[in-house]
Amino acid sequence: MTPTLSDGQLAALDAYWRAANYLSVGQIYLRDNPLLDRPLTRQDVKPRLLGHWGTTPGINFVYAHLNRLIVEHDLDMIYVIGPGHGGPGLVANAYLEGSYTEHYPAIERSHSGMERLFRQFSWPGGIPSHVSPETPGSIHEGGELGYSLAHAYGAAFDNPDLIVACIVGDGEAETGPLAASWHSNKFVNPARDGAVLPILHLNGFKIANPTILARIGREQLTELLRGYGHEPYFVEGDDPAIVHRVMAETLEMVLQDIKTIQAAARTAAGAPVRPRWPMIVLKTPKGWTGPKTVDGVPVEGTWRAHQVPLADFSKPEHVAQLEAWLQSYRPAELFDEGGKIRDALSALAPTGHRRMSSNPHANGGMLLEPLSLPDFRDFAVAVATPGGVEAEATRALGHYLREVMRLNLDRQNFRLFGPDETASNRLDAVYDVAGKAWMAEIEPVDQDLSATGRVMEVLSEHLCQGWLEGYLLTGRHGFFSCYEAFAHIVDSMLNQHAKWLKVSRNIPWRRPIASLNYLLTSHVWRQDHNGLSHQDPGFIDQVANKTSDIARIYLPPDANCLLSVADHCLRSRDYVNLIVAGKQPEWQWLGIDAAVRHCTAGAGIWHWAGIADEDPDVVMACAGDVPTLEALAAVMLLRDYVPDIRIRFVNVVDLMVLEPRGEHPHGLDDHGFDALFTTDKPVIFAFHGFPAMIHKLTYRRTNHGNMHVRGYKQEGTTTTPFDMVVLNDLDRYRLALDAIERIPRFAHEVPAARNRYWATMERHKLHIAEHGEDMPEVRDWRWSA
Amino acid sequence: MTPTLSDGQLAALDAYWRAANYLSVGQIYLRDNPLLDRPLTRQDVKPRLLGHWGTTPGINFVYAHLNRLIVEHDLDMIYVIGPGHGGPGLVANAYLEGSYTEHYPAIERSHSGMERLFRQFSWPGGIPSHVSPETPGSIHEGGELGYSLAHAYGAAFDNPDLIVACIVGDGEAETGPLAASWHSNKFVNPARDGAVLPILHLNGFKIANPTILARIGREQLTELLRGYGHEPYFVEGDDPAIVHRVMAETLEMVLQDIKTIQAAARTAAGAPVRPRWPMIVLKTPKGWTGPKTVDGVPVEGTWRAHQVPLADFSKPEHVAQLEAWLQSYRPAELFDEGGKIRDALSALAPTGHRRMSSNPHANGGMLLEPLSLPDFRDFAVAVATPGGVEAEATRALGHYLREVMRLNLDRQNFRLFGPDETASNRLDAVYDVAGKAWMAEIEPVDQDLSATGRVMEVLSEHLCQGWLEGYLLTGRHGFFSCYEAFAHIVDSMLNQHAKWLKVSRNIPWRRPIASLNYLLTSHVWRQDHNGLSHQDPGFIDQVANKTSDIARIYLPPDANCLLSVADHCLRSRDYVNLIVAGKQPEWQWLGIDAAVRHCTAGAGIWHWAGIADEDPDVVMACAGDVPTLEALAAVMLLRDYVPDIRIRFVNVVDLMVLEPRGEHPHGLDDHGFDALFTTDKPVIFAFHGFPAMIHKLTYRRTNHGNMHVRGYKQEGTTTTPFDMVVLNDLDRYRLALDAIERIPRFAHEVPAARNRYWATMERHKLHIAEHGEDMPEVRDWRWSA
Repeated sequence: MTPTLSDGQLAALDAYWRAANYLSVGQIYLRDNPLLDRPLTRQDVKPRLLGHWGTTPGINFVYAHLNRLIVEHDLDMIYVIGPGHGGPGLVANAYLEGSYTEHYPAIERSHSGMERLFRQFSWPGGIPSHVSPETPGSIHEGGELGYSLAHAYGAAFDNPDLIVACIVGDGEAETGPLAASWHSNKFVNPARDGAVLPILHLNGFKIANPTILARIGREQLTELLRGYGHEPYFVEGDDPAIVHRVMAETLEMVLQDIKTIQAAARTAAGAPVRPRWPMIVLKTPKGWTGPKTVDGVPVEGTWRAHQVPLADFSKPEHVAQLEAWLQSYRPAELFDEGGKIRDALSALAPTGHRRMSSNPHANGGMLLEPLSLPDFRDFAVAVATPGGVEAEATRALGHYLREVMRLNLDRQNFRLFGPDETASNRLDAVYDVAGKAWMAEIEPVDQDLSATGRVMEVLSEHLCQGWLEGYLLTGRHGFFSCYEAFAHIVDSMLNQHAKWLKVSRNIPWRRPIASLNYLLTSHVWRQDHNGLSHQDPGFIDQVANKTSDIARIYLPPDANCLLSVADHCLRSRDYVNLIVAGKQPEWQWLGIDAAVRHCTAGAGIWHWAGIADEDPDVVMACAGDVPTLEALAAVMLLRDYVPDIRIRFVNVVDLMVLEPRGEHPHGLDDHGFDALFTTDKPVIFAFHGFPAMIHKLTYRRTNHGNMHVRGYKQEGTTTTPFDMVVLNDLDRYRLALDAIERIPRFAHEVPAARNRYWATMERHKLHIAEHGEDMPEVRDWRWSA
Repeated sequence: MTPTLSDGQLAALDAYWRAANYLSVGQIYLRDNPLLDRPLTRQDVKPRLLGHWGTTPGINFVYAHLNRLIVEHDLDMIYVIGPGHGGPGLVANAYLEGSYTEHYPAIERSHSGMERLFRQFSWPGGIPSHVSPETPGSIHEGGELGYSLAHAYGAAFDNPDLIVACIVGDGEAETGPLAASWHSNKFVNPARDGAVLPILHLNGFKIANPTILARIGREQLTELLRGYGHEPYFVEGDDPAIVHRVMAETLEMVLQDIKTIQAAARTAAGAPVRPRWPMIVLKTPKGWTGPKTVDGVPVEGTWRAHQVPLADFSKPEHVAQLEAWLQSYRPAELFDEGGKIRDALSALAPTGHRRMSSNPHANGGMLLEPLSLPDFRDFAVAVATPGGVEAEATRALGHYLREVMRLNLDRQNFRLFGPDETASNRLDAVYDVAGKAWMAEIEPVDQDLSATGRVMEVLSEHLCQGWLEGYLLTGRHGFFSCYEAFAHIVDSMLNQHAKWLKVSRNIPWRRPIASLNYLLTSHVWRQDHNGLSHQDPGFIDQVANKTSDIARIYLPPDANCLLSVADHCLRSRDYVNLIVAGKQPEWQWLGIDAAVRHCTAGAGIWHWAGIADEDPDVVMACAGDVPTLEALAAVMLLRDYVPDIRIRFVNVVDLMVLEPRGEHPHGLDDHGFDALFTTDKPVIFAFHGFPAMIHKLTYRRTNHGNMHVRGYKQEGTTTTPFDMVVLNDLDRYRLALDAIERIPRFAHEVPAARNRYWATMERHKLHIAEHGEDMPEVRDWRWSA
């Protein structure tokens, strides 16, 4: 067999790798003298050394080889960097390819450009030390570990011609999300989707410890990877000349496997079978080509190479060692006197959009097509009078989403994500158009599973979120429905995605992408059957901590408001949209036109539920579907108790209207806020989440001192739906008592109201204990004006 | 070979299983007529049917077989139930064993007791539907999936005679944390630790979908499990008579394997080698022994069996089918007329503490021994004058923890947990006493790895937390150190553990356990080198949302305060203690006695840093080490700017002192709060986390309107340490300006102060851009009184 690489090709490839390594070391260490035109001095070295060398040569090694493969086979390929701490590597390669200079013209391909390139790295006002939104060619922030492979699969879905190479660090491989991500290959259809090529980099060490996968032996590692459904190819060694040849040959084989798999699936009749996808295990020394020892202690191939292997440049021998290290790459062969990469080297890289640093998939907004959206009004629930009809809000949404799915089938750019809960969340109408993606075995009893499914269900919130992020970042659209309590599983992923959006919004060449849309359906107030573990509304707090240019939180009180909000979210860009709306049959309040007006305003007075005039005794406010129900029921109770009461009823859909305008663009100005909540009347606020959230949003408002908030206070168990609100003092009886207690002219009513309240509570407790379900007056309650 | 089970034993075992199944179905369905003394009617059936049948027969099947094994071999065993939605199964078995009645005397082993047992399940005022703290024998809440195997390993550490059987649902197996947990076996020392016996239950389906592991074929599944380092034994079938025999024989083999492994490790000289631990794959139909079909549609063995396979009892045929289902277990053979379990059956169960429902390990507080703690004062940093010395707070803590480790080595009841960061977090002194647990391969370059290590390092926050929870719940002690931003990875685990503590505190027979102690060291203000992804102080918010009987948050400003706080936390019970304290060299403020006094009070005036008198112009308040530094520096600036300024300096260690006493037991009463923060003076509050947290805690306080809070506002990148506080307006110059702007008598100083502020900022920006490090006046700053 002819070797894949001629000697000349090998030398060229190695030179390219050396160039990337040189530029990486330069970024970590040098503030001056980038081409070593003169002997290196301590003053040329940065005062603070921030960066991670250990993983970088491996990243660069793979990059160089992927480049060869791209050029050789004209591939459409992107590269997801799990060990993203090796930021200098990706920057170096983007610079070698020219796209760095295209994005950042000051970083020219010249002596002074290289000096700027080096200096800006981990330098105030420069660029971060990890792979970040600032890095051309990346869809993956490399700071927090665990999500690279899920991102890679998200990018590959519906991109049949794309290959997503994903380097997975053996440190990252210990995380839960990454461990779960290997099974993503059961959801990839080789006929329709692109390919993911995982490259497990057995670098051997984390910060201070060996990695598990590097220390279980070749046999168990092979079993493990085959168990994941992969065919592992091992590339191992520390002699570059040998490893180059093995890597090049392996990549050819791997590519051939991928092509064979895809060709078979794309020509065969019937549903494709799940293949055994190839992958690579690359075992090379940590900090490869770096200092073998420092101060007599081994460094290359050990955990000591993790960050900066050489430090303390008060020691002259360290300066000399750094210079020798840099010279070991023979920079004079790589760059001309002016600092420009030599043409022979530069010619090795792909060109244009074939460059991984310039691939449009890695700047998804460039490829983003708006969804074709049906008129959400067509799916409205007919509401002749408020409270005149019951409906399941998410079922109405499901009908709308089915049409969204249908209208965009041709574009193949919309998917639903959820942990085994799409049907449970009443969104199953979408199955009429697209089933659940599934490439594992199918049995007769299964329903709606399909190799061409577009609903992604796996019992891992991490995978749902990671896939969706990858899908969005490569320019597509999606919707993630999830139990409210278990959204906390992805708190940290939300953090990282929000950070990515915050930064990328300010990078001119990053185009806007579709928003990350969450629908939390099985929410705290309707998890009475699943008990305390399923009851937590804190994801709202998590989203609210994000910056105001990113975070949007909606609490639609009924089906039509949910439709209006969802449509808005699917049209939006660069946001995190959180929607909380229940799935149970509930009374409906607003016709579709009123719903649109209400959602557009974000909050408003419901005149039909209270008085229209300017002088209420009390403001009954609410946010969330169940709190709205309880607040309306409280209004009816109050009218019965104290018929001349003047109640203003305020509903909040868009939670951020409560914040001052200076804090959030959706915030009402003070005039608007006061027009709803008055400046001096008691406000009883029934809130879906933790009460402190309302105080946090409103503490600067004039009438804050009169705001009395009820919400979730961590009480719950397996009980009845109404008992859930009782346990947390969010029930209608408590809200009504709260109001009476705070209206001065009803002071004389308070003792009677309290007695009535406690008697009702007693009756409630006795009833549920006896009957196991709520009192008829609660179950059969209806609004009447 | 003689079969393990005689025919008689098989029949008895099957009867026991039938009894558990009968009791499980009864709990899900019946409110009356528990023994079917009369024909079943619709009125006997609960009005709301809440529970999960699908997984329950499998749980019961394993339980019965483990019982046989325990009795046969006199084993010390507990059973962790990953598919904890099958709550009725564990309750049924505890009832069969008598321990349920011991814990809940009203649930007698009689007709009326059984009626109560059935009725209470998922009934208001009764017990939750999932395995929960109320369930005897459990250390694992079964609501949120993913953590069973990590809990099992946590329980097994340092319990050499314990076997922890852990049933893992194939749904749960899709989660990230569970997927990572398989590698826990690289941390189990067969000589020192107990054994975990994973039983992967291939029930086949989730709520509405098949499971991945049930659909990848036997070959790939075997490879996967062998790759995890296990030897899988397959037990498969749907004919109970056959599966009983196979299961019994398999358990004998598995136990023999465990004994062989442990015996070899415990007698061999030198470090034990990592064995291939046995495990079981149990493949049985979902909803086994339940209705085969309902309304003509297949149920047993499908996802339809997940919750209640029979519903809608307005159909008389459903009532009949339920009765037939119940009768299929032949209850008359199992229970006497009075409802008591027949003696022959009852005799099959283990007795006393050998019963899994009564094993003290599953009620860890029963076994809890207080740690032997050294005098933390012995590790104090000598602080002759405030700001007179620099120290790394966590290094001082490391010295203390080393002695904690040493003093409790004999008891084997203390471990440290952290994701590869113990040394990075400067706690490495502990290695002097105990290394890092590691059973995988060891190479010469490795340091401090040991089969007998007591520091648990794995790059998975999920595993660290899960192991620690399991360790605590079985009556031991631990400490989890973690990067602040990445603590969010375990937000949802924290939620579940806090819920467990909240409930178990109110269960008389649950004894208090050691608190869950977090140390967040690499915190937001000192992640300038790692950049935005590593900068997030939101875990404080997450803990603060927990109930006040559980949540404790400490922000020690220096090493001696950290020592005092840590000692307090290690002595506490049933709390979640969050400690945030940096690891970098910083100035020290309080001698050890002053630190103890300060931490005991939770907050106090630092007279040496301000005025002692009663009439300050401004209160400079702070919480957190870096905010304290900046606030003190601001004081010095202000003295320079306006020498006659009267500043009161307040430091807060225990964040919850800020909440009203009615909200949190640590809350200061209003008098105490006002004595610190005045009722009318401007307060400049420099806070470690998101500023809104301070407002949320203090909005009810008299002087809240004058509180001006600075904290993290999501600004950051790779930059200098001081630039991090500048970017977030938490720096000394801004704090000083804030103060001047708010003191009426200095109104005339404001224009000059603003000019000075902007000039300083300009100088700062220029300096860091030019030099890559902070201005000398910042780097070299020292406090002077």
